[in-house]
Amino acid sequence: MALKSVILSPSLMCADLLNLSHAVRELEEAGVDALHIDLIDSAFSPSMPLGLETIKQLRKHTRLDFDIHIMSVNNEWFIKQVLDIGVQRIAFHYETSLHPDRLVNLIKKENVEAGIALNPATSLTTLDYLLPSLDYALLMLINPGFAGDKSEQQVPYAEEKVRQLRAKITATGNRTAIQVDGRVSFATIPGLIAAGATNLVLGSTGLFVAGQTLEESKRMLDKAVAGGLALMHKEGASV
Amino acid sequence: MALKSVILSPSLMCADLLNLSHAVRELEEAGVDALHIDLIDSAFSPSMPLGLETIKQLRKHTRLDFDIHIMSVNNEWFIKQVLDIGVQRIAFHYETSLHPDRLVNLIKKENVEAGIALNPATSLTTLDYLLPSLDYALLMLINPGFAGDKSEQQVPYAEEKVRQLRAKITATGNRTAIQVDGRVSFATIPGLIAAGATNLVLGSTGLFVAGQTLEESKRMLDKAVAGGLALMHKEGASV
Amino acid sequence: MALKSVILSPSLMCADLLNLSHAVRELEEAGVDALHIDLIDSAFSPSMPLGLETIKQLRKHTRLDFDIHIMSVNNEWFIKQVLDIGVQRIAFHYETSLHPDRLVNLIKKENVEAGIALNPATSLTTLDYLLPSLDYALLMLINPGFAGDKSEQQVPYAEEKVRQLRAKITATGNRTAIQVDGRVSFATIPGLIAAGATNLVLGSTGLFVAGQTLEESKRMLDKAVAGGLALMHKEGASV
Amino acid sequence: MALKSVILSPSLMCADLLNLSHAVRELEEAGVDALHIDLIDSAFSPSMPLGLETIKQLRKHTRLDFDIHIMSVNNEWFIKQVLDIGVQRIAFHYETSLHPDRLVNLIKKENVEAGIALNPATSLTTLDYLLPSLDYALLMLINPGFAGDKSEQQVPYAEEKVRQLRAKITATGNRTAIQVDGRVSFATIPGLIAAGATNLVLGSTGLFVAGQTLEESKRMLDKAVAGGLALMHKEGASV
Amino acid sequence: MALKSVILSPSLMCADLLNLSHAVRELEEAGVDALHIDLIDSAFSPSMPLGLETIKQLRKHTRLDFDIHIMSVNNEWFIKQVLDIGVQRIAFHYETSLHPDRLVNLIKKENVEAGIALNPATSLTTLDYLLPSLDYALLMLINPGFAGDKSEQQVPYAEEKVRQLRAKITATGNRTAIQVDGRVSFATIPGLIAAGATNLVLGSTGLFVAGQTLEESKRMLDKAVAGGLALMHKEGASV
Amino acid sequence: MALKSVILSPSLMCADLLNLSHAVRELEEAGVDALHIDLIDSAFSPSMPLGLETIKQLRKHTRLDFDIHIMSVNNEWFIKQVLDIGVQRIAFHYETSLHPDRLVNLIKKENVEAGIALNPATSLTTLDYLLPSLDYALLMLINPGFAGDKSEQQVPYAEEKVRQLRAKITATGNRTAIQVDGRVSFATIPGLIAAGATNLVLGSTGLFVAGQTLEESKRMLDKAVAGGLALMHKEGASV
Repeated sequence: MALKSVILSPSLMCADLLNLSHAVRELEEAGVDALHIDLIDSAFSPSMPLGLETIKQLRKHTRLDFDIHIMSVNNEWFIKQVLDIGVQRIAFHYETSLHPDRLVNLIKKENVEAGIALNPATSLTTLDYLLPSLDYALLMLINPGFAGDKSEQQVPYAEEKVRQLRAKITATGNRTAIQVDGRVSFATIPGLIAAGATNLVLGSTGLFVAGQTLEESKRMLDKAVAGGLALMHKEGASV
Repeated sequence: MALKSVILSPSLMCADLLNLSHAVRELEEAGVDALHIDLIDSAFSPSMPLGLETIKQLRKHTRLDFDIHIMSVNNEWFIKQVLDIGVQRIAFHYETSLHPDRLVNLIKKENVEAGIALNPATSLTTLDYLLPSLDYALLMLINPGFAGDKSEQQVPYAEEKVRQLRAKITATGNRTAIQVDGRVSFATIPGLIAAGATNLVLGSTGLFVAGQTLEESKRMLDKAVAGGLALMHKEGASV
Repeated sequence: MALKSVILSPSLMCADLLNLSHAVRELEEAGVDALHIDLIDSAFSPSMPLGLETIKQLRKHTRLDFDIHIMSVNNEWFIKQVLDIGVQRIAFHYETSLHPDRLVNLIKKENVEAGIALNPATSLTTLDYLLPSLDYALLMLINPGFAGDKSEQQVPYAEEKVRQLRAKITATGNRTAIQVDGRVSFATIPGLIAAGATNLVLGSTGLFVAGQTLEESKRMLDKAVAGGLALMHKEGASV
Repeated sequence: MALKSVILSPSLMCADLLNLSHAVRELEEAGVDALHIDLIDSAFSPSMPLGLETIKQLRKHTRLDFDIHIMSVNNEWFIKQVLDIGVQRIAFHYETSLHPDRLVNLIKKENVEAGIALNPATSLTTLDYLLPSLDYALLMLINPGFAGDKSEQQVPYAEEKVRQLRAKITATGNRTAIQVDGRVSFATIPGLIAAGATNLVLGSTGLFVAGQTLEESKRMLDKAVAGGLALMHKEGASV
Repeated sequence: MALKSVILSPSLMCADLLNLSHAVRELEEAGVDALHIDLIDSAFSPSMPLGLETIKQLRKHTRLDFDIHIMSVNNEWFIKQVLDIGVQRIAFHYETSLHPDRLVNLIKKENVEAGIALNPATSLTTLDYLLPSLDYALLMLINPGFAGDKSEQQVPYAEEKVRQLRAKITATGNRTAIQVDGRVSFATIPGLIAAGATNLVLGSTGLFVAGQTLEESKRMLDKAVAGGLALMHKEGASV
Repeated sequence: MALKSVILSPSLMCADLLNLSHAVRELEEAGVDALHIDLIDSAFSPSMPLGLETIKQLRKHTRLDFDIHIMSVNNEWFIKQVLDIGVQRIAFHYETSLHPDRLVNLIKKENVEAGIALNPATSLTTLDYLLPSLDYALLMLINPGFAGDKSEQQVPYAEEKVRQLRAKITATGNRTAIQVDGRVSFATIPGLIAAGATNLVLGSTGLFVAGQTLEESKRMLDKAVAGGLALMHKEGASV
């Protein structure tokens, strides 16, 4: 298994929300691939960081891919809203979906990439029949919506879950992407990539690091990614 | 009844959300009194324009009063969030409150002004026992959360409802403020103020008017308010 | 106040559902004005008598007005469904509407008559601001969805509530129709019409009477209505 | 208006729950009329003090009337449970009832007294059509379910609301009882009774007073009640 | 594994609902085994095709088995309703059941066959402990409640899921029936039967085919079933 | 695998609730390890046996461990309530937890043992990632909240499920406890212990047996446990 590249998705929630126009310009210049945008409805988890009007205004302003992560009890409504705005990737949570198969179809019919997000503890058996139709799976590595709680740490089974999902994907004959989200850091990136992650959501431990510039962080990030890819190839070779 | 002044509350949702820092500075310079901030949870009505993280960052940036209008099915949670952020005024909807008396107490205990918001069609009898404890009542003049729908017009009974509420307030011996929200425009302001409104939420028809500067709008606004106050005094005198 | 006529709306639920085509033809021939169709979602009340597919097929088959009574916790969805089918009158319940003003607008925009239904115990103050925009109000005279429970009787305050609503309507300067629903019978019709009812929902006590033909029932019905109109004129004259 | 007596209903929640058998015997001996039992489901308000199994065991143990106050989002289920146990009085909240008229009928069909409870801020217009069929109305004078919060005080409009309800009842030609609940104390009892209350729920300020015996409290209570009745007669006479 | 026969269950929703009496007579004559009746509550999925009153009247009219498929968020209520009507088979969805084990018992206690229905994407691990107590499992092959949406196609993993479920059943030592529902057609029937399906729900692609008579469809159906059984025996033999 | 001991947890719900003080003293003397306390909110299942006020008063009265079993749709609220009271063990249901990983952390942060409860039919795959962080898993062997229904019997797959869970735990390298609840009896205890159960919830078939004293039951219980441990060692030896 040789993956050409890793997608870098900084989380919009960590950017300077008072100067978004400027903040997004800086991210473009730093060379990221997409903006990861969390839409939380306050019912899925006790948090509502950003709104749709902000996204709508931002859409006209940048050509970066919009990578939407819906955390809601009403997935269909949010999917339709962001399809209207015009985005490139939409993931919604399995845990709040009664008809996930249908929601995936809704997204793909519009030529947008479809993903399913799983809470940390959610079993991979939930994807038994969904996996072949997905463009990506999003594994939450902290409890979603609680990022502001400093005591929330990346789950100890992060790498193991990524590895198990990668094996499950390989068994389908596909190369479905795996996005990882939650305290993704320079230290954990190599292991996550080696385990099979291909898309990194970057927050305060992976890009918006206190006390250093975006450029400094980006260099550390590139190095961590390269380390991960090397590790993956080595592991792949030894298999 | 002589009210010294009218509070001008531009709606943050109509501002340039990509350059909030600058947009708010402009509003301060234009001489407004507060920022009216709509928090909609997507369940109360199908809309979720802005988020709490945006408000949190904004709080450190301006000394304008924050005038929060919660449109949610979970009022207590939002009240606690904005009390933590530090705001000056909080209104929540009667229609989704099982224990409104308690929520008013929660707000007032923190020395924040408490208001109750009513949807257009909601009867004023809902305020029979709440009115004396309120700092203000917020009358929605369009269906809340549907401002983006251009066919939504100010309800024909706008002035009549304001007048009836003012009479009900006067009967309590208080001077509780009345905030009006929804297509408040240069044309409708005089009548609304004469009827008893004392706090105007300003959107695309009252301040953020396409094709003219904030200063131009502000002058028209001041004139409309002055007209309303004059009308009110005349009516008061003739009574 | 002189009302030209009274609308007769037999309840589809009481018809022969195994031979609807024939049953509706018979109702047409008997000279009724509309079909009253109850849509109950099993959540509003523990009942789900009829479905939308039945209505859809029926629509192509008769030119009778469709008089829809939605009893649901999700009014907007049902309104859109029946607007798509093509109906003449839609009433939904105030008790489950957060934005009733908006729902009325949704219906009227399609040139369909809009009504609001009230459960027996619901206060008329709920209509304080809605009344002028309504084509009709529907007063439930038994608890909706429990018609199958033989112990459910028409509420003792039926006539009084109709009379109070008629007075409230007259005060607005309109002639909004009043539909009454629930054990409307030959015995109670005169009093209800005299009190101000103008539209009768007819079930097992007013049209589909065990042991007699539709024609026989229709004659009794016409007589009861005539009696009611005479009574109304007499009362009107004495006022 | 001359009411023979006032019903004293100590709140079970305030009794010694570890020795209920003994505690109830003491209450019987003290001469109270009923046990007021709060059933809160944790959804109506954040509290669930007592359970049904406790009530069931208690039913076999005492002949005191059981005066049930349901605070739930599922009134019908609780009504059926307590009807099965065998109680004398059941009140449920208007605010969570879609079909209150039907629930009243359910209770009365079993020859149990039916009441409707109102939160402090709830308008009396909610009872416009229900009042004649009620055996009693329960006015909450603090926010229900928050009795444990020491900062919760009796609402300032307690007496006024009782007086307005009594007037509304008198207008129906009935003598429906009024139960008051929430910080009912020796100091407030005279005023409440004079205003029209006929049934007192007694907690930590009216019977289970720290530092004094039940007998001592009962004497103070009797005196307060007598004072209230005297005041009522005086006011009645002067009218 | 040799299954004697395959059960043919035409979907009532596809029949002529205006002449049900006649339509059902025709189905009896065509030689089908049961009527498959979808009960959708509009909350499980946005659809409410048929109602209970229709089923109740139909019950007295035919001796065909009633094969009920509940799609609801309130399974217990619907189960009790159809048990009262008198039906032969009841399936409810796992996805909306908190206590599926109990619901299966409720059904079996009345000597009615119990099934559990799974949405397309739902993992078979959900049946780990339920399978031995079931009379049948219902596999949805399109998203339930969206049959009217022409873009909904049978899921590509239909045969695979049936085969996996059959293997899981065989491992329990039972011969539990497998009902398949969703775009079951002459073309797909052989493969589905060979994979292990024993009960076919027939709609617009399997019996009610536009432009041909029921008899013509029935002959094509019989041929497809025979083909499937032959294929199954061949596969069984080769194993 | 050699487990030193088995924890005996009598269910408080079965005790004499009118003389709790005495009843708990007797349990202490009988030599049990903990009190198993069911908190059911009436929404998770139709039952609400005991309340929090009872638990709070009881906490001050005994040094027995409190073993809390939350059956609620709002786990977080109940967890916080019982953490405040001061308990030793808290289990909540997976089926109603959107963020179970977070809830486990909430409990463990307070140095309280955390468990997850599973309804009878719930697959063990739900624990795939949760198991290593748990102190115990609670397997319901009857449908929770329906203990009062005499027709509810222990599920036939009780031992099998315990055995499969024990194997799954062993595979993680841990010795996580397994609590079993539901018709645990002298007859079934040996098999359950041999299969891997380590903590027994005792109700009307395991301790509070009609017609015999606690002491008599306790002797039978000890014998059954000893039998189970012997069986387990024998099976372990033969593996």
